[in-house]
Amino acid sequence: MAMPNLRVALAQSNPRLGDFRSNSAQILSDVLVAHAQGADLIAFGEMALSGYPIEDLAVRPEFLSHARSALTELALEIMKAGAGDIPVIVGFPNGPIRDSSEPPNSTPSVIAHNSAAVIYRGEVAGTYDKHHLPNYGVFDEYRNFIPGTGHVLVRLRGIDVAILICEDIWRDGGVCDELAEIRPGLVVVVNGSPFEQDKDDVRLPLVSRRAASVGAPFAYLNLVGGQDDLVFDGDSFVVDEFGTLVARAKSFEPDILLCDLELAAHEGRTVERTGTQIIDCGDGGESHTDISVSTTQTPRNELERVWSALVLGLRDYVEKNGFPSVILGLSGGIDSAVCAALAVDAIGPDRVFGVSMPSQWSSEHSRSDADDAAQRLGITLTTQPIAELVNPIETQLELDGIAAENVQARIRGVILMGLSNMHGHLVLTTGNKTEIAVGYSTIYGDSVGGFAPIRDVPKTLVWELAKWRNREAESKGATPPIPENSITKPPSAELRPGQVDQDSLPPYDQLDALLDAYITQRLGRDEVVALGFAPELVDRIVALVDRAEWKRRQGAIGPKISGMAFGRDRRLPVTFHRS
Amino acid sequence: MAMPNLRVALAQSNPRLGDFRSNSAQILSDVLVAHAQGADLIAFGEMALSGYPIEDLAVRPEFLSHARSALTELALEIMKAGAGDIPVIVGFPNGPIRDSSEPPNSTPSVIAHNSAAVIYRGEVAGTYDKHHLPNYGVFDEYRNFIPGTGHVLVRLRGIDVAILICEDIWRDGGVCDELAEIRPGLVVVVNGSPFEQDKDDVRLPLVSRRAASVGAPFAYLNLVGGQDDLVFDGDSFVVDEFGTLVARAKSFEPDILLCDLELAAHEGRTVERTGTQIIDCGDGGESHTDISVSTTQTPRNELERVWSALVLGLRDYVEKNGFPSVILGLSGGIDSAVCAALAVDAIGPDRVFGVSMPSQWSSEHSRSDADDAAQRLGITLTTQPIAELVNPIETQLELDGIAAENVQARIRGVILMGLSNMHGHLVLTTGNKTEIAVGYSTIYGDSVGGFAPIRDVPKTLVWELAKWRNREAESKGATPPIPENSITKPPSAELRPGQVDQDSLPPYDQLDALLDAYITQRLGRDEVVALGFAPELVDRIVALVDRAEWKRRQGAIGPKISGMAFGRDRRLPVTFHRS
Repeated sequence: MAMPNLRVALAQSNPRLGDFRSNSAQILSDVLVAHAQGADLIAFGEMALSGYPIEDLAVRPEFLSHARSALTELALEIMKAGAGDIPVIVGFPNGPIRDSSEPPNSTPSVIAHNSAAVIYRGEVAGTYDKHHLPNYGVFDEYRNFIPGTGHVLVRLRGIDVAILICEDIWRDGGVCDELAEIRPGLVVVVNGSPFEQDKDDVRLPLVSRRAASVGAPFAYLNLVGGQDDLVFDGDSFVVDEFGTLVARAKSFEPDILLCDLELAAHEGRTVERTGTQIIDCGDGGESHTDISVSTTQTPRNELERVWSALVLGLRDYVEKNGFPSVILGLSGGIDSAVCAALAVDAIGPDRVFGVSMPSQWSSEHSRSDADDAAQRLGITLTTQPIAELVNPIETQLELDGIAAENVQARIRGVILMGLSNMHGHLVLTTGNKTEIAVGYSTIYGDSVGGFAPIRDVPKTLVWELAKWRNREAESKGATPPIPENSITKPPSAELRPGQVDQDSLPPYDQLDALLDAYITQRLGRDEVVALGFAPELVDRIVALVDRAEWKRRQGAIGPKISGMAFGRDRRLPVTFHRS
Repeated sequence: MAMPNLRVALAQSNPRLGDFRSNSAQILSDVLVAHAQGADLIAFGEMALSGYPIEDLAVRPEFLSHARSALTELALEIMKAGAGDIPVIVGFPNGPIRDSSEPPNSTPSVIAHNSAAVIYRGEVAGTYDKHHLPNYGVFDEYRNFIPGTGHVLVRLRGIDVAILICEDIWRDGGVCDELAEIRPGLVVVVNGSPFEQDKDDVRLPLVSRRAASVGAPFAYLNLVGGQDDLVFDGDSFVVDEFGTLVARAKSFEPDILLCDLELAAHEGRTVERTGTQIIDCGDGGESHTDISVSTTQTPRNELERVWSALVLGLRDYVEKNGFPSVILGLSGGIDSAVCAALAVDAIGPDRVFGVSMPSQWSSEHSRSDADDAAQRLGITLTTQPIAELVNPIETQLELDGIAAENVQARIRGVILMGLSNMHGHLVLTTGNKTEIAVGYSTIYGDSVGGFAPIRDVPKTLVWELAKWRNREAESKGATPPIPENSITKPPSAELRPGQVDQDSLPPYDQLDALLDAYITQRLGRDEVVALGFAPELVDRIVALVDRAEWKRRQGAIGPKISGMAFGRDRRLPVTFHRS
């Protein structure tokens, strides 16, 4: 038996959700690049044609027919451009399909498959429908899709290439066991897998295990880019049939990974299960055994990965929604300094506008630290003092205490929104995950904004990221973007004289550890206490977290970087009595 | 064959989510009332022990063990109180149960059944686990529960009583077909079915059809009360084996419906399927064939039903979250007048505070209409003019046009929130569904608040409700609560001189019809045009709706009354390019 060879291209593209024209153009362009580089097979990510996740757009017949038309058109365009002779695997929403199990009289809710099309010679030659639908965490795929059955094998130069989609590899049994029986020569896994801290430690070993159990190389292909609260990190890779890494794409940017593989031919190997469609793609182009184009990117360290995810999430929210610029309050504190640095890394200093909004309680260092941050970043900073705006309100309404403190924060919100409405800036809200967890913010005040860059970053990680970003700059001989003083001084909302956060909250390292146990690990009150936290502290913090749910519901979206972000990852009632 | 008789009690209670102590006390009290009235069997609603829906609380082992303890305790309490001799059916979250199909390395997400326990003689004698899990509309039950299998028959005085839970009856095939095979003498359906306009037209015919196909009477039991955005309307009922209505409970309030039924004995009838547990409850108490206690409430008309749902949703949000009072801006317009009337109907005039916040552009009639509304309702009205608060901001920031208009709305928000922070009022936000759909509101301005009583009520329905409520008052010789002038004058945001809504929006009857097509009926752009709307108008309105998604995400919750409320009923991306 000869050992034929394939050059496989994994194109990790950054689709714009619903923009079939622009996504198709990108796919065509990537196909032509890969074709020119001698690829025999090109694959794109999950729903690369439509963007992902499409949520309830999946139940709009109009959206689905646009997807279908775009796919047909794309197949013709690839043919016309001279690349019709190599199979192209593209994720798309495949419908409408009426589900006979839907409840009578309810709005139809399940009318599509989550699929990957095989385009070949100007036509859609076949589709693989995702078998396993995730319905946990941020995913609602039982809501929006129906599970597929059967298999598609792309038979190319005697080699059978099978297709899986994302969740398919996360389930034991099911479709992976079926592939172990079929014994394809290669498995292409088409993914839309959002970034999470340390998820890389999970994906690669999992795929390696699947490759070894199926006995074939696996090509794991992920999307890249930000879509609302999700950041797809790319980081596509290929493992051989023993599960050993052989090629790896870039993270956090589009890339076309080319990989030469020695694969087993189907003859005497593949077992054809019922429900398997074979797409015969003949002998393909020339063989490429003589050269190797496989590359392996070195993965970045964890802080760099988090920073990159935050930058990409912010950039894509700005660009995909067409904002010319962003504006944010610069208080001199760590959170706003880090958000400003992220914004500059995302869209450049010319499009970032800072506003210093000192009150009568603002310390001199607040203003000078804000100035310092703006200078380091090269962004425009304007000053809008708030005392003259706040005093008439406090007086007219006879407010004092926290009610008066909140007016300061809310007038800052009015200022940022006013400037946004005048000049078209997107307002960034600078709250971190710790304060969002315990409700340590003023709703309609410091929480105003369309995007919250660090909403899933705990305070202790904000500090770590700031230090990492400064070190990174220093190592390249650049100006560290975050004022040292913003990193080292005790955090304060400065809503009254001498106030610091630690007046009303425990030390942040302790608080973040407690929140991690209660929120991310989902431990119960007693289990958190068993970790060694004082029972009174646990009760106090847990009550703060539960009571702040109504504020979180009204908060801006921002990039998920943890295994448990607030929002669709964690769905809890507002009205809830803790027993 | 004798025809034995049962007196069945359906207790539609209003649970507080997570408050096992208070829910158990209510259940015990209802059991004793029904027992004293000679009931042979008592049933409660879906998750009556915990409240419903519990969302991701279902994955907290601590929450589930509290539920289990509460259930065990309740069984003992019923026994101690002398009512242990009759079976009690109670909905509860039944776990934790580890799901073997869960993906490796992901947070466990499915560890409970949605169940109904049968309590008898101080013990939990058995549980029925819901077979069919809804995962559409507002429901995420595939996320939080695992489907049950098997059946439970409560064998009482020779009669087999089967149990179903809510979605079980909405699916053709499946569990209802199994019951047709088993042939129980009675089926008790335990529900948590939220109110929707015209849903009553669906429930009763559906249940009648199931009763006829199973060949047994069905007792349909619903929860009552508000839980965040859902309102359970009660309206429990019983149909005979031909599907004919024989008894009906109250709507929108707790009730215990007693119903005497002549039921077929199991002997020579029931077929015991594998996986069926029979709970033998002996002969029960005395027979009650001599009297009939069945009552049938007359259903209310549709406007009254909607009004009642809004009142109940608002009342329960206030009471279950422990707010002493509510505050809202009274502009003299229809929306705030209707919200104030709802609030007075919900919690009485002493706990409702109105604020008139005239600007330099406010017409004289705005102030007088706000005064009129407050007087009709008997609520306290204070006046907080905004000109002196707004002018310094507009001047300092050099704002004009819409940016300046928004400052007026935002200062009103600052005032309401300031008074809320000082006095503990819940702020009601008065936006209607039409303006929320097209984004015709100022975010952090008129949108501030913890609860939005009419967020799911289109503008045209707001007017209808106002007229209905006034007629209702007149028919009882009471003062119509809503000023006639607020109903008849052209709606205006009054953010500049002479402004009316219709300057920038089409007539509301046309707009609401278009929004119904696009949002509720989920029609595509072309399908909406095909209904006869001008293509340019459709494009304009559809674009407004899509672009306002980010604002809706940050909006307050409020009662769902339609088949498609904004929020978890309709999940769409913010970042989305319309092709």
